[in-house]
Amino acid sequence: MSTDPDRDQTSITRRRFVAGSLIGGAAVALPATAEAKRRSKPVHKPHHRPAKHRTALPTGADVIVVGAGLAGLTAARNLVNAGHSVIVIEARDRVGGRIWNHDLGGGQVSERGGTFVGPTQDYLLALAGELGVGTFPTYDTGDDVYMADGQRLTYSDGGPLGTAPPDPTTLAEVTADIELLDQLSTGIPVDAPWTASDAATYDGQTLETWIDQHSVTPRFKELVSAATRPIFGAEPRELSMLFVLFYIAASGDETNAGTFERNFDTRGGAQQSRFIGGSQTIPLTMAAQLGHPVVLSSPVRQIRQGPSTVTVVSDRLTARAEQVIVALPPALAGRIDYEPILPMERDQLTQRYGQGTLTKVAAVYPTPFWREQGLTGQALATGGPVSATFDDSPPGGSPGVLFGFVGGDYARQYNAMSPSARQTAVLDQFAGFFGAQAQQPTAYFDTSWSGEQWTRGCPVGIPGMGTLLAYGPWIRAPIGRLHWAGTETSTYWNGYMDGAVRSGERAASEVLAAL
Amino acid sequence: MSTDPDRDQTSITRRRFVAGSLIGGAAVALPATAEAKRRSKPVHKPHHRPAKHRTALPTGADVIVVGAGLAGLTAARNLVNAGHSVIVIEARDRVGGRIWNHDLGGGQVSERGGTFVGPTQDYLLALAGELGVGTFPTYDTGDDVYMADGQRLTYSDGGPLGTAPPDPTTLAEVTADIELLDQLSTGIPVDAPWTASDAATYDGQTLETWIDQHSVTPRFKELVSAATRPIFGAEPRELSMLFVLFYIAASGDETNAGTFERNFDTRGGAQQSRFIGGSQTIPLTMAAQLGHPVVLSSPVRQIRQGPSTVTVVSDRLTARAEQVIVALPPALAGRIDYEPILPMERDQLTQRYGQGTLTKVAAVYPTPFWREQGLTGQALATGGPVSATFDDSPPGGSPGVLFGFVGGDYARQYNAMSPSARQTAVLDQFAGFFGAQAQQPTAYFDTSWSGEQWTRGCPVGIPGMGTLLAYGPWIRAPIGRLHWAGTETSTYWNGYMDGAVRSGERAASEVLAAL
Repeated sequence: MSTDPDRDQTSITRRRFVAGSLIGGAAVALPATAEAKRRSKPVHKPHHRPAKHRTALPTGADVIVVGAGLAGLTAARNLVNAGHSVIVIEARDRVGGRIWNHDLGGGQVSERGGTFVGPTQDYLLALAGELGVGTFPTYDTGDDVYMADGQRLTYSDGGPLGTAPPDPTTLAEVTADIELLDQLSTGIPVDAPWTASDAATYDGQTLETWIDQHSVTPRFKELVSAATRPIFGAEPRELSMLFVLFYIAASGDETNAGTFERNFDTRGGAQQSRFIGGSQTIPLTMAAQLGHPVVLSSPVRQIRQGPSTVTVVSDRLTARAEQVIVALPPALAGRIDYEPILPMERDQLTQRYGQGTLTKVAAVYPTPFWREQGLTGQALATGGPVSATFDDSPPGGSPGVLFGFVGGDYARQYNAMSPSARQTAVLDQFAGFFGAQAQQPTAYFDTSWSGEQWTRGCPVGIPGMGTLLAYGPWIRAPIGRLHWAGTETSTYWNGYMDGAVRSGERAASEVLAAL
Repeated sequence: MSTDPDRDQTSITRRRFVAGSLIGGAAVALPATAEAKRRSKPVHKPHHRPAKHRTALPTGADVIVVGAGLAGLTAARNLVNAGHSVIVIEARDRVGGRIWNHDLGGGQVSERGGTFVGPTQDYLLALAGELGVGTFPTYDTGDDVYMADGQRLTYSDGGPLGTAPPDPTTLAEVTADIELLDQLSTGIPVDAPWTASDAATYDGQTLETWIDQHSVTPRFKELVSAATRPIFGAEPRELSMLFVLFYIAASGDETNAGTFERNFDTRGGAQQSRFIGGSQTIPLTMAAQLGHPVVLSSPVRQIRQGPSTVTVVSDRLTARAEQVIVALPPALAGRIDYEPILPMERDQLTQRYGQGTLTKVAAVYPTPFWREQGLTGQALATGGPVSATFDDSPPGGSPGVLFGFVGGDYARQYNAMSPSARQTAVLDQFAGFFGAQAQQPTAYFDTSWSGEQWTRGCPVGIPGMGTLLAYGPWIRAPIGRLHWAGTETSTYWNGYMDGAVRSGERAASEVLAAL
C-alpha cells in the first residue's frame, strides 16, 4: 500500500513523461494503455502549435488558467479552440486534479478519484466523445450486498425498490424521506439556491437536524450517514440542508429535474458507466491536444491584477495575461495571495467552504471473484470503515478490482490507524461482503484526498451553515479579470466531473466575452 | 470615514515610528498620548539588548513568532523573559492584530477592535498591570436603551433583570433560555468540548435550530441575533450549538464557571472596564519592551520544518529557529505553505474555521451628550445595522465617542452600501437611540474586519458544524516544531483579548519545554 506518489510506480512513470511536456502541450504523454494510445489523436486541431522541445518558460498569454484539473483544461481547450493563447499552470506533477488513474500493470488501470459517468452528465459525455474516450457499463450484473449491524442481505437493484436495500427496519422511512427530499429539491433554483423561498430556514439547519425530525429509526440514521459519507465525504451533522437540497437538484440538467436516486444509483444514475483507459484519460488527452503550455509542479502563490493585465506568480514561472481563470477548489483558491485583496464576501466564502473528507480504498484480485457468486461488487454498509463498494475492474474483467469509499467520521478514524490496521479493517469488511477470497488481494492501495496537498479533500467543497445564503453568488462571480471554475462553481452536477466540465465551459465563455 | 489605513492619520503616524523600530524592538514607538508615554518604562528588563539602529535583518533566533498580535507578543515576551532569543514577524505595518487604537486627535484615542476587559480575565489584567497600563470603568451610569420593532425602552442594567431588556414579549424566554444555556454549558469541558457527553448532538445542530425548539416568540429570535451579531459576528444559523456552549463555558476561569451574562454584560461582565491609552497600548508596550526584533510589513508565506530547525520565509526576511509559534487566526494560519504539509486533520480544521463577520462603527461628538440625558450610551436593537452600542469616550469624557457593532447579516448588508448610505443608516439609528444630536458627529469611522487582509474577520474564528467534534484537538496540538497561539486556541475567554494572552503564555510554555 502506498499513498506516497514518490513510491507509486504510476506516478513515477507519469512524471517522467509529463514533465518533459512542460512547454509544448503536444508532448504530454498519455498513459501507456492500448485504448489511450488509440484515442490520443486530436479531434480539434489546436490553433497554436508551439515548437516542440522549446526550453524557455512562457512569459505571457491571452489567458492563464490556474489548475490543470478537468475544469481548468476544459476552459483552456475552449479558449484555444476560439483562437486564444493560453498557459495552464498546475501545482502537481501531473494533470487531472481529483481525477487520477492508478496503474494496475499489464496496461490496465483503475481510478483513485473521480470514476463514473451517468445520464444527464451530457457535458462530460460530449467532451469524452470529442476526445475519443469511450465508455463502458459499470459492472452491475447480479445482486448488491447490504450490511447493517452484522446482518447481511443481498438484493437486486433492478427490483421495485431500486437501490434502496430491502431492510424492513428502514424501508418505510427511506421511501418517504427520499420522496420528500426529491420534492423539496424541486424548489431550489440550481443557479441561485440562496433565492429559494425557504433558503434561510434550510441553510440554518443541518441534514442531521432534518433527519431527526423525519425519522424515529436509529438504523435509518445510520443509513443516511452511509449515503453522505461517499456522496459528500461528510456526516449529516456537517451538511447544511440547503446545500443537500441544492446538490440533489443539481443532479439533473436543463430538462431533467435532479433526484437523490440519480445521484446515488448505478443503473440509471451517476455511477452507470466508466471510461475506457480510466477517467484520467480525459484530462491527459486534453493536455496532450492543447498545443499550449501546461506547466507542471508550479504552485501559484500570488495573482496581481493591474489596470490592463494580470500577473500570476508561481514557483516555476511568473507570467502575464489579460484574463485569469482560477480552476481550484474554493478552499485552495482562498490560499493564493491576491493583489488587490479580494472583496470580503469572496474571502469569507472561501474561509467557509472546506473540502469533504474522503479516502478511496481498493483491493486488486486475480479475478473479480464476486461475479461468480452472482454479485455486482456493490455493497452498502452502515458500519465502517467502508460505506459503499464498486467493481472497478478494467473492461475485460482482469484483474478484479474492488474499491470502497471511506468518508466522514470513518475517514478520520481510518486516517488515525496504522497502514496495516487500515488494510486489515477494509479486507475484513470486504470479506464480510463478498466472502473469504476478499482477504487475499494481490495489491491494496488507498488515496486519502484530504492528505493530498493540492486538493485537500474530496469529492467536493462543502459550504458551512449560512454560507450559501450569505455568500453564495461569490462562488463564481468574476472579480475584475479573475474568473472562477471548478466543480464547486457548477449549477448542475456540482461535485461531479460533469460539473467540472460545465464550469470550465462557463468560465471560458466569460473570458471570451471579456477579451 | 476611512477604512483605508493609508488614509488614516493614526496609521501613518504609527507606521513612521514603528517601521523605524524594525530591528531593535526597543525603538518601537508608543502612540503619542501622555498616558502611554508615562507607561512606556519597561517593567521586565529584556535579557537581550540588540544594538539600536542595526540595519541588517536577523537571520535566526531560538524562536520565531509569526504574528505580532496580543498572543504572539505575549509568547515572545515570556520567551525573552526566560532568556531566549526571539524574532517576531508581522504582516501588517503595525503590531496589535485585532487590537487597534484610533487617534481622535488631541492625544485621545478610541478603539477600532478589541476594547474591554472584565472579571475573570485575569491574564489580561495581570499583563496590563505588569506593563503599567491602567484601566478605567466603561461609562455605565444611567439607563440603557432597547429598541425592538420601533419600540424604544430605557432601563437600568442594575435592576433585577440585569442586562436583559424589560420587554414583556421576550422576558420569560430570555430568562428561561439563558438559565438553560448557562446550565448546559457547565457540561462542556473548556479544554476538550468534543468530549462532552452530548458533544455530537450539539455539534450537529445550529443555535438557530436550538432556539427554534426553545422559543415560540419571533421577537425573542430577533433578540438572539442581536446578541450573536456582536458576540460572534454571526447569525444563529451559522453557529454550532457545541461552540456556543463552549463559548459560554469559556467565559470564566479555573474557579468561576462561565455564564452568558458574564460574556454579555458591562457591569460584572466582559465589557466592565477599558484601558487607559487604548487597548493597543498593551501590544505597543510589549513590542517596545521586547528588546528583540519585531519585523513589520513582512507576511509569512512558507514554514519549512527540517530535522533540527525551522525556516520561516516572509516577504522581508527568511530566518531560522528551533521552534516556531504561529499566532494567527486559524483561517490565516491555513494559508501559509507548510513543508512538510500539515496532517490532514489540522488542514481540514483550518478549512472549516472562518472568521466572524463584524464591522465596528463609531461616531465622535464634542461631548458624550447622552450622559446628560441619564443614558449610559449602551443600546441593544433587534433591527440594524447596529445591534449594540457602547460609550467609547476617553476617560475624561472628551470627545464623546459612541461605537456600534454591525455583525452577521447586517455587516454583509452594510458592506454592500455606499459609504454615505452606511453613515446615514448608522446615524439614523443612533438618533433613534439617543436623540437628534446623534446626527451631528464631528467624525465618523468604521472598521470592516472581514476586509482587513491580515485578520479577515472578527471577533473570532467560528468552527463549522461538526468541526470541534472531528478536529477540535488540532486547534492547538503542536506539530513537530510548530506551535499554535491566538485567542481561538484558548480554553478560557476564547475570542477575547484575555484568551489571546492565555494562548501566548501556553504556547511559550510548550516551547520552553521543547527547547
